[in-house]
Formats: sequence, C-alpha cells, structure tokens
Amino acid sequence: MATSNPPLKDDLDIVIPTIRNLDFLEMWRPFFQPYHLIIVQDGDPSKTIKVPSGFSYDLYNRNDINKILGPKASCISFKDSACRCFGYMVSKKKYIFTIDDDCFVAKDPSGKDIDALSQHIRNLLHPATPYFFNTLYDPFSDGADFVRGYPFSLREGIPTAVSHGLWLNIPDYDAPTQLVKPRERNTRYVDAVMTIPKGTLFPMCGMNLAFDRNMIGPAMYFGLMGDGQPIGRYDDMWAGWCVKVICDHLGLGIKTGLPYIWHSKASNPFVNLKKEYKGIFWQEEIIPFFQALSLPKESTTVQACYIEMAKQVKDKLGKIDPYFVKLGDAMVTWIEAWDELNLKDSKKPNGK
Amino acid sequence: MATSNPPLKDDLDIVIPTIRNLDFLEMWRPFFQPYHLIIVQDGDPSKTIKVPSGFSYDLYNRNDINKILGPKASCISFKDSACRCFGYMVSKKKYIFTIDDDCFVAKDPSGKDIDALSQHIRNLLHPATPYFFNTLYDPFSDGADFVRGYPFSLREGIPTAVSHGLWLNIPDYDAPTQLVKPRERNTRYVDAVMTIPKGTLFPMCGMNLAFDRNMIGPAMYFGLMGDGQPIGRYDDMWAGWCVKVICDHLGLGIKTGLPYIWHSKASNPFVNLKKEYKGIFWQEEIIPFFQALSLPKESTTVQACYIEMAKQVKDKLGKIDPYFVKLGDAMVTWIEAWDELNLKDSKKPNGK
Repeated sequence: MATSNPPLKDDLDIVIPTIRNLDFLEMWRPFFQPYHLIIVQDGDPSKTIKVPSGFSYDLYNRNDINKILGPKASCISFKDSACRCFGYMVSKKKYIFTIDDDCFVAKDPSGKDIDALSQHIRNLLHPATPYFFNTLYDPFSDGADFVRGYPFSLREGIPTAVSHGLWLNIPDYDAPTQLVKPRERNTRYVDAVMTIPKGTLFPMCGMNLAFDRNMIGPAMYFGLMGDGQPIGRYDDMWAGWCVKVICDHLGLGIKTGLPYIWHSKASNPFVNLKKEYKGIFWQEEIIPFFQALSLPKESTTVQACYIEMAKQVKDKLGKIDPYFVKLGDAMVTWIEAWDELNLKDSKKPNGK
Repeated sequence: MATSNPPLKDDLDIVIPTIRNLDFLEMWRPFFQPYHLIIVQDGDPSKTIKVPSGFSYDLYNRNDINKILGPKASCISFKDSACRCFGYMVSKKKYIFTIDDDCFVAKDPSGKDIDALSQHIRNLLHPATPYFFNTLYDPFSDGADFVRGYPFSLREGIPTAVSHGLWLNIPDYDAPTQLVKPRERNTRYVDAVMTIPKGTLFPMCGMNLAFDRNMIGPAMYFGLMGDGQPIGRYDDMWAGWCVKVICDHLGLGIKTGLPYIWHSKASNPFVNLKKEYKGIFWQEEIIPFFQALSLPKESTTVQACYIEMAKQVKDKLGKIDPYFVKLGDAMVTWIEAWDELNLKDSKKPNGK
C-alpha cells in the first residue's frame, strides 16, 4: 500500500492546517502514509479532528500552540489557514510539504495518479537556475538539458529552497476573478517545472507547497491573518514575497510548475472578497516595496534577512496602515519563537 | 487549401534563409501559402533555389543584397543563416515570422497539425506580463487568467514584441551537448506560453521566431557570423540579448513557449563546435555585459537604443577581442541601412 522506499521518508513532514476531519487523507494514503504528518487544527480547540487510521501524526490545536509558544503565540494566526506555519516551526525535519485538505490526487494526461510529493522532492533535490532563462524549462528533467547559448558557468545551478506546485480543476483565483469567472476550471496540464528568475516576484500559493526547512524555513512565516486582523488570504502571498527576496539575496532557488494536485472546491467568493479587499489595494504598494527591497551583505542567514525585512516593513509599509507595524513586530516574534524551538533544544513540541 | 481568412495576411512576411530548394514548404502549404515569403539565399548566388509553385515570394541572393545595400552590405553575414536579417530589413510588413528550412509541421498531443504561425500571431496580439510572474503561465490563453495575488495594476500588460517558439524532436543544443547526448530528442510538449520576466536574459533561437517589426525590427540584427568571422551559431543569441535589453528598456514584452515546430535533423556537432567554441567562452563575459547594460532614458526609439548599445559593445566587449569592435561598427551600419530602406522611400528592394 505504502510506496516502497519512499524518498526522504525520515527527512520530511507533511503539514496540514484544518478545521475538519481529515477524510481527504484516504485518497493520499499510498503517497503520504510513509511520512509523518503535522496537523495544525484551526478554530475551536475543543473540537475533535478525526484522522484516518494508520497515519503517523502530531496534532496541535490552539491550546497546544499557546502552551508551546506562550506569549509568542500571538504571531500565529487564528481562524485562518495561515496557522499552518506553526507546523513548520515545530517540525524537526529538513523538508516540509504542506497541502490543503480540499486537495486531492490529480491525474496526469495519461490517466495516472500523480505522486505530488515525489515530484516536489525531485524539484527540491535538483538545482535551480534563476540567473538565466532556459527555454526548454527544467534542464534537469528527463530528456531535457540546457539549450544552446546557456552560459556553461551557470549550468551547475544553485540549491533549490522552494518547490511551488499547481492545481487542476479549481484555479487559485482572487475573489474578483472568482466572481467574474465562476465556471472557469483549470484543465491545462503544463508538463514543466521552472525556476523563477532572480529579481522576479511571484504569487506563492500555500495549497501545494514544499520547501527545504533548513534553507528557508524561518522566512516561511504566513503573517497575521484571520481573527482580529484586517486581512485574509494573503498569508501565502506574504510568505512568498519575503521568501523570494531572501532567496534571491542568499543565492537560493525557487521552482514552480509540476506537481499538480486536484483542487476540489472553490471557496466562497463573497467571503473571500471581504478577506481580500484591503490586500487588493495594499498589494499595489507592497509589491513595489518588495521589488525595491535590498538586504545588506552582512545579512547572511535567513533569520538576519528576516529581521532586517521586518524593520523595513515597519518603516516603509507602516505608512499604509498600522497593521504593518503589528505585522513587522510579529515577524520578529516569529523569528524569536523559531529560534527558541529550533536553536535550543529546551522546548520540545508536545505532539500527541 | 489555403486557410480561409488567415490572420494578418497582408501584415506579415515569412523570412526563410536557405541554401537549397525549398521542398520543406510543401508541408507548410496550408499554413504559409496565404502569406508572402522573403527568401534570403545564402552562399553561391549563381545557384538556383527552387520554390514550390503557388507561393508568393521575393528571393534575394548575395548579388541582390550587395546591389540594394551597396557598401553597407558588409553588415550582412555571408555563408551563415544570420543573413536572414536582411529579410527583416527589406520587408515592409508589420510582422515577421522566420523559420529554418529543416523545420516541419509538428503535431500536438492529440495528433493534430500545429499551425505555428497562428499561435505566433496570437502571442504577438495579446499583451505580455514581464513585471510579475503568473504561475498559471499565459493569463490570456483560453481557460486561464491571472492568479490570486497578481497585482491588478499590472494585468493590462504591455505590448508583445517577440514570440519565441520551440522545437520538438531535435532540441536546439550547443555542440558540446550534442556531442554528449547524441540521441537526445525533445518529446515533451509543454502546453504553455509565458512572458520572460523583465531583467532576465534568454537564449533566443532563430529557428521558429516571430516579431513585431515596427516595435523591435531594428534590433533584430543577427550580427557578423560565418564567412570571414571568428564565430558562428551566435547570430540569434546576439540578437536575443540585444532585443531583450531593449525591450526591457522600452517596456515591450517577449514570450516563449508555444508554438512547436518539428526540427528534423541535427547539424554536425563537429562543425558546430568549430563555429561555437569562441562564443562558448566569450558568452561568459558577454552575458554579464548585457545583464549590467543600462540605456539612457533619452533613448526612446529602438534605433537610439541600438546605437547606444553598439557604442558600449565597442567600448566594453572590444577588450575581449577586436571582433567586437568590428561588430559594434556593423551594428551602426545595420541601423543606417535599416533607416535608409525604411525611413526614406528612395530605395525600393528589388524583389523578383
């Protein structure tokens, strides 16, 4: 049933934020069962989340988060899937794969089930090439290579920190696009993985995402969203902007493309609009901010980059809305909490 | 036979450099016959090139080039397919599609013949989006759009100047890769068109390429290659570097991906190595030069950008090899010749 010799079995955690029973895992069983799951329960902690038998997991609800982080739990969002980043923090593994609980196994054009996790691992274990564009896409995929004119000095590539997977069926649209195109489905299977070029920002979606926690984990903070916050559905976007700028600075690569998952249902566009509308105009200033953001040479660790970034967020985005001052502070709290859990061995996460 | 209502029938020329009879056109007849062809005959001008009946064309051999350009013909390469750029210069159309004579109609995964030209036209007529990455690729393709987190202010896009198509079967590899992977074939049909982000260079291949001549034509110079030159097979690469930097400067977009053509046979890797070997180490300095090249704000036309670029080529690349001084001069000559043929109406090209 479980894949024989799954890659990186002992080096990867699957992080799932949820508010419901995890029936969706049944379909993923052949692919996920060899791995350990970190389930981050959002919302009412007294509710019981059922996990199908046979899976190895730790489940953390809000009480656990508060207990483990103490006052620093304030940096973890509540009533928003942004809470998933708590799972990145308590993991002790080198790699993280995170997936939404409304995402199922997709099929490739030949009708075969797609082992999303294997493709992510492949993406992460092969180099990235952000300094020059390869027109045949991933030069490390089977039957492909660097094309004529690709500088040889750049063919070694650089380490890959992030693998961003895509979605068949329901595309990851914002509320306005959902409203305008209620029937649009993504049926296009694009058989490609590519490195996002240096200096280019992208909209990182948290639905189907893997990363090297040792390389970039401390920057994978999903911000302050949901309960008590003026904004939602920008958690993964925020992380993506921060992560891309830091990866560019540190010489790490980000890939996007394969693998696809099957996204089963669209969230409510009216609810989404309410969550998003501030983000929709704020991002018009946030993106130029990140495009222009430069980090000092002395910032050679993810943590140092992130703390510097938090400072600039407060200084420059604080003018848009006081929310960004709070967010900048939360970014610092996040790093403190990360380091407390990860640098010292004093606090062990209390998984169940 | 000919497609009914072919798009841009009167606005597009197909430019084909060749040294042989154009039997390959038979396969393209349903797609190309509605259009006018500009055939640039390379090598011995006394040789007769046979063109299948029913095509409308002008054919220019070296004698014609010399007659039309006079002493400025020195900027047009001889015994190298770089001579194709003469065709861009003498065309009076808004759009150019150029294709090699060893490229045939490819099939899409459903087995249907791919109308490469229609896809190029589609690419050129839809906006480009170089300022932010869209993870679902071309937002203007059917069933796709901008994903969540894509700034709304950037969704209008910018005009597309270049459409770079790809190749099934024989990939466009350099000589070393051809030697190392003699049996590699490209069988991966990637169903995507994408804009190459601003600030990112790419290896532009001239095999299957379309562009808006009014927007970027004067920068589509394929350099000095072949007879009497120390280098070959860098003609399209050179044009690609120049064009990308100028497009970035002027706010024009470049797309790559669909359409595929079927590239029938690999050129001789030993001959290619001889042509390429200087380029292989020169490009290690040329690419950083183009990556760092900045054009003054006052350069608001392609011609002005190109003349400024020629100056910098001579100044900065001249140190690598005297060839680049000659090339910088040829770039200026090219622009002079372009303007002579295109700005004034005094010299009409002598097509047959």
